[in-house]
Amino acid sequence: MQVILDLCLVPMGVGVSVSQYVAECDRVLQETGLKHELHANGTNIEGEWDAVMAAVKLCHERVHAMGVSRIFTAIKLSTRTDRHQTMDNKIQSVKAKLQ
Amino acid sequence: MQVILDLCLVPMGVGVSVSQYVAECDRVLQETGLKHELHANGTNIEGEWDAVMAAVKLCHERVHAMGVSRIFTAIKLSTRTDRHQTMDNKIQSVKAKLQ
Amino acid sequence: MQVILDLCLVPMGVGVSVSQYVAECDRVLQETGLKHELHANGTNIEGEWDAVMAAVKLCHERVHAMGVSRIFTAIKLSTRTDRHQTMDNKIQSVKAKLQ
Amino acid sequence: MQVILDLCLVPMGVGVSVSQYVAECDRVLQETGLKHELHANGTNIEGEWDAVMAAVKLCHERVHAMGVSRIFTAIKLSTRTDRHQTMDNKIQSVKAKLQ
Repeated sequence: MQVILDLCLVPMGVGVSVSQYVAECDRVLQETGLKHELHANGTNIEGEWDAVMAAVKLCHERVHAMGVSRIFTAIKLSTRTDRHQTMDNKIQSVKAKLQ
Repeated sequence: MQVILDLCLVPMGVGVSVSQYVAECDRVLQETGLKHELHANGTNIEGEWDAVMAAVKLCHERVHAMGVSRIFTAIKLSTRTDRHQTMDNKIQSVKAKLQ
Repeated sequence: MQVILDLCLVPMGVGVSVSQYVAECDRVLQETGLKHELHANGTNIEGEWDAVMAAVKLCHERVHAMGVSRIFTAIKLSTRTDRHQTMDNKIQSVKAKLQ
Repeated sequence: MQVILDLCLVPMGVGVSVSQYVAECDRVLQETGLKHELHANGTNIEGEWDAVMAAVKLCHERVHAMGVSRIFTAIKLSTRTDRHQTMDNKIQSVKAKLQ
């Protein structure tokens, strides 16, 4: 089962600047080899469900290991069984309608 | 790693009434034995990360198996390493502040 | 336009215990008279779009006024034009399918 | 109060291809003049709270007017009072940490 997922970890109780933790999650995703794209409110990831969810778990473990004792996370995801879809497909579909 | 998670699956393309799919997810959660509570905009679940995420995956598989070819899902979750917290704790902490 | 909304404010940089801020949002919602229900991962609210969104804004203003300089918020909402639906309806529809 | 918001409308009961509705929301946002960026799982918007929330409401009205009777929406947003922050700032902060 393929999934396209938007991940947003919010470290709590460690100040209002959290970019170092977002950067750490980016490093985790680079290590996994999963396709991912940082945006202003999260990071989009695509891949097989188990691989993506393992990466999401690892992001939490690594951010906790940096000394963050509480993390709030918002995730949006979509799965579909009718056809394979990528993040690029999704954006191109919308852009095609806008022309 | 314990997690408290709010799960909301949105079956797409199968009409505007989706309670049968939410009910199926509730059955999945009952089967897992995980503590869970249905609310008006989702279902709260608590437990070990791997057990909870396995249940989330199974919900998707079962809803797809009912003929839904696309699912959009919104998840909120929190993890903490400083102490064990339950869903009941969270609500009681707020209610204590309100008295 | 009626809306059923799940509101979850996450105050950042003020420690890991945030129940006092959730309690303040509950007080705001009580003042508005909107129907609302606290759950383990947020608060469900129902009402007219403008009234609900005014309440959501006021929650942010009040939590900032308590000294929180950054808030992350996750919202889920649904609107429908085919019929009027309440939070109670939604839960009853699922429970009916489970019997 | 400035807000950076991630908007994701999910039209229900109108098939699994929903790019025409996402495109309509993009047109709404273009009309408002608000800075916005489409990504694979939503659209990021920045601006004054009232202007952004008026745009979010208008997106719902326009998608309902296209014949969609039920919409599920996921929103993430952040507000901060300590300093002005833009979507570009957020991404640059992370990228600086990655170098």
